Amino acid sequence: MGELVVDELEVQKYQEQEVEENGLPLVLLYGPLSLLNVFGSESLLNNFRLIKPWESPEIPLHEYLITHAKNVKALVCLGKTELDSKAIHCLPSLEIVVTCAAGLNHIDLIECRRRGIMVCNAGNAYTIDGADYAVGLLLDVLRRVTSGDRYVRSRMWPLKGEYRLGSKLRGKRVGIVGLGSIGSEVVKRLVPFGCKISYNSRKKKPGVPYPYYSSVYDLAVNNDVLVLLCSLSEETFHCIDKDVLTALGKDGVIINIGRGPLVDEEQLVRFLVNGDIAGAGLDVFEDEPAVPRELMELDNVVLSPHKAVFTPESFIELQELIVGNLQAFFSKKPLLSLYKNALSASS
Amino acid sequence: MGELVVDELEVQKYQEQEVEENGLPLVLLYGPLSLLNVFGSESLLNNFRLIKPWESPEIPLHEYLITHAKNVKALVCLGKTELDSKAIHCLPSLEIVVTCAAGLNHIDLIECRRRGIMVCNAGNAYTIDGADYAVGLLLDVLRRVTSGDRYVRSRMWPLKGEYRLGSKLRGKRVGIVGLGSIGSEVVKRLVPFGCKISYNSRKKKPGVPYPYYSSVYDLAVNNDVLVLLCSLSEETFHCIDKDVLTALGKDGVIINIGRGPLVDEEQLVRFLVNGDIAGAGLDVFEDEPAVPRELMELDNVVLSPHKAVFTPESFIELQELIVGNLQAFFSKKPLLSLYKNALSASS
Repeated sequence: MGELVVDELEVQKYQEQEVEENGLPLVLLYGPLSLLNVFGSESLLNNFRLIKPWESPEIPLHEYLITHAKNVKALVCLGKTELDSKAIHCLPSLEIVVTCAAGLNHIDLIECRRRGIMVCNAGNAYTIDGADYAVGLLLDVLRRVTSGDRYVRSRMWPLKGEYRLGSKLRGKRVGIVGLGSIGSEVVKRLVPFGCKISYNSRKKKPGVPYPYYSSVYDLAVNNDVLVLLCSLSEETFHCIDKDVLTALGKDGVIINIGRGPLVDEEQLVRFLVNGDIAGAGLDVFEDEPAVPRELMELDNVVLSPHKAVFTPESFIELQELIVGNLQAFFSKKPLLSLYKNALSASS
Repeated sequence: MGELVVDELEVQKYQEQEVEENGLPLVLLYGPLSLLNVFGSESLLNNFRLIKPWESPEIPLHEYLITHAKNVKALVCLGKTELDSKAIHCLPSLEIVVTCAAGLNHIDLIECRRRGIMVCNAGNAYTIDGADYAVGLLLDVLRRVTSGDRYVRSRMWPLKGEYRLGSKLRGKRVGIVGLGSIGSEVVKRLVPFGCKISYNSRKKKPGVPYPYYSSVYDLAVNNDVLVLLCSLSEETFHCIDKDVLTALGKDGVIINIGRGPLVDEEQLVRFLVNGDIAGAGLDVFEDEPAVPRELMELDNVVLSPHKAVFTPESFIELQELIVGNLQAFFSKKPLLSLYKNALSASS
């Protein structure tokens, strides 16, 4: 984790107070301050007066919120910090939550909806990087790039000769689980490689020319590769289970840049260890940063520390998006990345 | 190296003789027999009577050729086995050389031309795999896939937290050195990623919409990435030298799936170690399988054991091509992958 670059003087200057000063709107930073570095602090510091509970670790969080943040209308949720109903209850004036994430399973959306709190997500800031990385992982697993590198570095090449070959991407049937913005970009990239695309989503997408399967199981039956891009929900939890892996079969490959719990990891490990599927490229894990130790030994797996959607370039875009959403909110203009489902009616 | 799967009985059955038997045409296999396994033996064994010098290691090669192969009209050159003028002199009846390689720098083309010997190369059998792999290496180097995997396997993720991010592919200026069949396929793949393409080739290609630079140096000045795909010749030897690397600069990346000696490896190592270029994805090396030990320590380099263009699927295609070329030759039909330059006039 990078060091915090916020100047101590700046910190004092903008110390939390319950009324606005210098005309700067008040914003509660929710999450480890160290992430400010990652997500960029400059334009937040220059445009808002920031309240930073994490700088007062001696005060329990909820007590801090009640004492110091009861007038706060806007909250920026850093990283994947959980924003639960208990925390939301401590913020009676809260009107908007701006997150840095594409998926929102760490936010209590039901409570937000009940209270009429608007939620902005990261919009498409991660779309391009995520799509690139998914294709990169797929190429890597099929063509054994990372394991080939390990082979060279182990100095086995001169001793053992040629390395076990991977498999061709052209002609592979690739099933996209969750055809949202990242999925569409993945498809755009994979078509020139000669892949045959099909997909599963909550609903058939109008105007999409690729075969639709209404279940992940049927998608697995009809594909060589599954690329997991859907968000995590009760419906998608463990959507890759024993039956789906069996249907995918011995030559099957799983690419997961969605969320760890989309996969029944215990089963996945078993299938990989036994050679009952061919390989996997995993950017996310059920209990990350813990990674099952059996996977560490496998050559048909590429392990990635949850960074598929991150590049320095996308953080700059994201920072602009966060500040843009806050400025839009305080000036009563349309939000840039309002998460529609947060405000829609629910049962 | 895989074990030879040729049945011993089969071997005896087809033992070399100087006259044709059973009406099967005579073909000299030139190169390590173990490669037969890789390139497929079935359809060669079924359609031709094979002469295999490597099965008689006690006889010096040239002596063997003179004694056992003086009537041979067709030769299949396995792997990158050098076919020099001395060997060609031992084969007075030779009319056709069928190789398994795309590049032909291991064949004495001048001697073949002088003798009117036709040369067939691997045609486009490696094109798709090569293009896929080049894109895979580029994604891997920029997005730090392999080094991220190493990070996870070293169990540093839970201890040190988030891993150093790579760089976005979108918007990168990618210069193709050698816009042949693989180069064209690489371009087709990179365009949907949002890369800006330009290229260097012996000549400007008519109908290609991307900027052309007549020198590799100028290409380096105007790009973030160089992808090396040209064949090795006197003109292209060390075309990536100190000046080109300097022009490419600190954020520059080299991808080499062409030939090792296209790059002045000593300089490349120096630039990588000193951080004077950003990274490299290398499938080929000057003295492979030897790889400079300095590279083994670097995290910004992906090392690959010369397998960019190989998949089991492409070997099946290649085997069909080799047999097809031989059948065309013996039945006096047009060859499938005649290497034009081998027969053209030279100065």
